Amino acid sequence: MTNENDRIDRLIANWKLWLEDDGDYVFGPGAYAILKSIRDTGTISAGAKAVGMSYRYAWGVIKKIEVKLGIKLLATYKGGNVGGGGATVTEAGLRLIKMYHSIREAFEQVTEKFR
Amino acid sequence: MTNENDRIDRLIANWKLWLEDDGDYVFGPGAYAILKSIRDTGTISAGAKAVGMSYRYAWGVIKKIEVKLGIKLLATYKGGNVGGGGATVTEAGLRLIKMYHSIREAFEQVTEKFR
Repeated sequence: MTNENDRIDRLIANWKLWLEDDGDYVFGPGAYAILKSIRDTGTISAGAKAVGMSYRYAWGVIKKIEVKLGIKLLATYKGGNVGGGGATVTEAGLRLIKMYHSIREAFEQVTEKFR
Repeated sequence: MTNENDRIDRLIANWKLWLEDDGDYVFGPGAYAILKSIRDTGTISAGAKAVGMSYRYAWGVIKKIEVKLGIKLLATYKGGNVGGGGATVTEAGLRLIKMYHSIREAFEQVTEKFR
């Protein structure tokens, strides 16, 4: 019986977290990674690259959420240098990152206890 | 800006939880519902029915987990009455229910805070 209990106890909890608006999927782990990466790098292209996605894909993911929520997550600007310009995550975007991050951290603390 | 923050704050966190063995999906919400229902009703057929599944499907889900883990989750027995007999969840099965349940409850407590 101890062996059988061991088989159960060695199982690892895994999970997926997402945010919904009125039951509609809005924001999940992929969008979280992209938005955070854009915040950290300051441009969509560098942010996308850092999480292994194309500019087009990353921008599409963010755009879709902006349309669903009717708010801007990114403010883009043009720079003076060649290839200049960049993207700043808006206050609402930062709030979204923070909300997802807080729940994620709390979930990780829960599952840590079961390792 | 307040309206935009409100749009973020009204989002609802949703999640899926499952247990893995060496990266392999073993036990998720469906199996949890079935196993708990069999525990509560005492038979596979009544347990399956209570969660809107067929006997065959429910038994298949449980059997698959038993094979993956190499342990029995159910002990079945034959009864004396017509249509008698039933299924008891084993100690390992109860442990599995308890583990999943504990994490689930903790996750719910986390997401409650964000409502």
